Amino acid sequence: MSELAQIGVTGLAVMGRNLARNFARNGYRVALHNRTYARTQSLIADHGDEGTFLPSESMKDFVASLERPRRIVIMVQAGAGTDAVIDELIPLLEPDDIVIDAGNAHFPDTIRREQQLAEHNLHFVGMGVSGGEEGALNGPSIMPGGSAKSYESLGPMLEKISAHVDGVPCCTYIGPDGAGHFVKMVHNGIEYADMQLIAEAYDLLRQGLGASAAEIAEIFKQWNTGDLESFLIEITAEVLAHVDAETGKPFVDIILDRAEQKGTGRWTVQNALDLGVPITGIAEATFDRALSGSVPQREAARAKLAGKTANWEIKDRDAFIEDVRQALYASKVVAYSQGFDQIAAASKEYGWDIDRGAMARIWRGGCIIRARFLNRITEAYERDPELPLLLADDYFAEAVSSGLEAWRRIVAGAAQNGVPTAAFSSSLAYYDGIRADRLPAALIQAQRDYFGAHTYHRVDKEGTFHTEWSLDRSETQQ
Amino acid sequence: MSELAQIGVTGLAVMGRNLARNFARNGYRVALHNRTYARTQSLIADHGDEGTFLPSESMKDFVASLERPRRIVIMVQAGAGTDAVIDELIPLLEPDDIVIDAGNAHFPDTIRREQQLAEHNLHFVGMGVSGGEEGALNGPSIMPGGSAKSYESLGPMLEKISAHVDGVPCCTYIGPDGAGHFVKMVHNGIEYADMQLIAEAYDLLRQGLGASAAEIAEIFKQWNTGDLESFLIEITAEVLAHVDAETGKPFVDIILDRAEQKGTGRWTVQNALDLGVPITGIAEATFDRALSGSVPQREAARAKLAGKTANWEIKDRDAFIEDVRQALYASKVVAYSQGFDQIAAASKEYGWDIDRGAMARIWRGGCIIRARFLNRITEAYERDPELPLLLADDYFAEAVSSGLEAWRRIVAGAAQNGVPTAAFSSSLAYYDGIRADRLPAALIQAQRDYFGAHTYHRVDKEGTFHTEWSLDRSETQQ
Repeated sequence: MSELAQIGVTGLAVMGRNLARNFARNGYRVALHNRTYARTQSLIADHGDEGTFLPSESMKDFVASLERPRRIVIMVQAGAGTDAVIDELIPLLEPDDIVIDAGNAHFPDTIRREQQLAEHNLHFVGMGVSGGEEGALNGPSIMPGGSAKSYESLGPMLEKISAHVDGVPCCTYIGPDGAGHFVKMVHNGIEYADMQLIAEAYDLLRQGLGASAAEIAEIFKQWNTGDLESFLIEITAEVLAHVDAETGKPFVDIILDRAEQKGTGRWTVQNALDLGVPITGIAEATFDRALSGSVPQREAARAKLAGKTANWEIKDRDAFIEDVRQALYASKVVAYSQGFDQIAAASKEYGWDIDRGAMARIWRGGCIIRARFLNRITEAYERDPELPLLLADDYFAEAVSSGLEAWRRIVAGAAQNGVPTAAFSSSLAYYDGIRADRLPAALIQAQRDYFGAHTYHRVDKEGTFHTEWSLDRSETQQ
Repeated sequence: MSELAQIGVTGLAVMGRNLARNFARNGYRVALHNRTYARTQSLIADHGDEGTFLPSESMKDFVASLERPRRIVIMVQAGAGTDAVIDELIPLLEPDDIVIDAGNAHFPDTIRREQQLAEHNLHFVGMGVSGGEEGALNGPSIMPGGSAKSYESLGPMLEKISAHVDGVPCCTYIGPDGAGHFVKMVHNGIEYADMQLIAEAYDLLRQGLGASAAEIAEIFKQWNTGDLESFLIEITAEVLAHVDAETGKPFVDIILDRAEQKGTGRWTVQNALDLGVPITGIAEATFDRALSGSVPQREAARAKLAGKTANWEIKDRDAFIEDVRQALYASKVVAYSQGFDQIAAASKEYGWDIDRGAMARIWRGGCIIRARFLNRITEAYERDPELPLLLADDYFAEAVSSGLEAWRRIVAGAAQNGVPTAAFSSSLAYYDGIRADRLPAALIQAQRDYFGAHTYHRVDKEGTFHTEWSLDRSETQQ
């Protein structure tokens, strides 16, 4: 009996393979299964010496090779593939077994699957995993949802294989049913915003200063020693410094400028619209990828829309670089503030009770948006777990205020000089909107009452009112 | 037999009631039905003299009172209410009868219902109706989808009761199944953008000039004599000139500044994300309504985020007003260009073959976004029915270019002076992005390849490539 596996992985493409190796390297006995057995054999052949693997050719033998309660990680194509594996597993499992979906499932699917498995007295854990192939092997950031009970049995193993920062694992229990995959989705949405902001900063330096890729690589390298220190800034410096072997040109200049996407940014924005949470930074980032891929539209526009391309008269090069850095940091704070606002709203809407400070903590390592800055977010939610707006935390309010004039100069300069900075400018508009004493939304409510009798509220008394616009313009309380 | 009704309306709340009256006033015999018969009776009592009404208490009698093929307009609460009425109708109908849903259905529901009724050899027409209560009675803009066959029988009646501009009806056949409700949805999305842009223009005048509501009303009234002439500009002048009877203050100042929404803006943006069409103006407008209603966030931000509120040093008042006008017009062109881009993408994706020029034509009257400017859009698509981008039409390219410097001054000034102009600045960023020779999206693709092996394309040759970032950085073709 002691020879049974402690955890099983079915689906041994590169992510599943690397997760399985990670478990084995950490001393766990790992059951293996793959639809095509050759892939299982190749894992054993290539890496069998890294730990204890128990390969099975059939799903039945795979399930039988696991100690109870069983812990089975599914790592297959999200969607119908996941459902097929679940349906195959259910009749083979016994009460209290734990099925873990480590793929990029959309959280409503995870909610549905959790209910389906609960009917069979099985636990279902929708688990977000960030860090790509490299992270899966050496320590990802792990976001497991599902029952608290399942985490008792599973959590210690996940925490062990996750990335660690200052000895703290980048894994914690997120919340019931879809909470894990939801948080992973928002992580990816924030990643879109982060990448877009970096791209705009690069474009500002390129167009504003006429700087070369190599020069900009040095600027990012420098930035990576300060508040902006993060994986994405680090790899931006690497990418910009890279030279294409074939042409001898900067690598970035030979890449086609059409950004692709796999869907998590889109899901994040669609959900924020359902929740009514303004995540404009992520939205602009997602739409900007779509814009870059709008080929016929871009061709038509290039042919017809003359206009200044940047010939920005920048007098002080270093001051401009510092302005861009501060604008990037402030815009980044806005994007994260919006993402955490969405997590709070979802937590309330779906009954998840998510600890936002813990989210920032487990994103410090392993994942794509890992950054020094996340410590500040954890601290902010430690100071006030109910913080209504990250931007309004003392540290971030001060950080953004101190860079405010730089941010304004950059957004204004970009507008004047024709450099598109959708995310920078949208973030600044959000900042100025959310702090406004009085918004012109009042006019919109009045228009809605005028043409659609949609009613309005007043600033000076309770109640719902309507003005008889097409009659005597008297006001009636509804 | 000649006494049978030519059209029936079931659901006689204000919109259904007004549509029924509109048909009767235009000489059609109208069958009436409502779940509660008292409402039918009250319509007859109040307006029975406007035409020929055939009231029925039961659905069965209502159906029997219609000539064949029957034409039955359902005007009930969108969603389950519509499905319930359809289920009640199906067994009572005969082949080729036409069921018309005139509510604000979400187009995927319309596609589903069209399939359901087709199985019974019934026609289902998802029909967008814009213009509110007033339009329903006196002539709305009507957007009917469904089979071309159904339009043969139904179209002439709809065209007769619709609004007319220069003798041309504001109604045309849109396309199969969900096309009508889709186009109505995008109409509403554009309406969101239009209202947001007007609100930002108002706020610029208010904060930039310190102008009173009455002064701004005069400016809008003036604008309504030029390119901006439209229903929304007209009612903005009306609303801003209105004084609250109770307090003697400008009406707009006593309205609570939280804009509400009913969901069509949200649907529009969610669909655009699915289609990959950047409709940033509509997205910013939708999110800005959510922002205005983010009460705890706004309170926290107001308390903590100091910063300049506008004390814009404007030397030439008239020049500033003209700058705002030009920025508004340019931003509006972008919002419409984006909306029409979405219609084109949907038409292709769902096989609808929508004539975009005709859409602009039927929006010239009856609906909320009716405007002089729509003639220009129709002309643009007449010049080139396959126009890839409205912005790149000769007229609009020239119109925007001539206001470009004003637009840049306004967006830059707003950023410098802390006036939130999310839609103005987002539209300008779109304009500068779509016409760009080279976007920093290339950097995003490089980052994606670095951390996720997502591959990239090159500018200098065909193929899909990946760089071995963690190894020797050689490039492999995939």
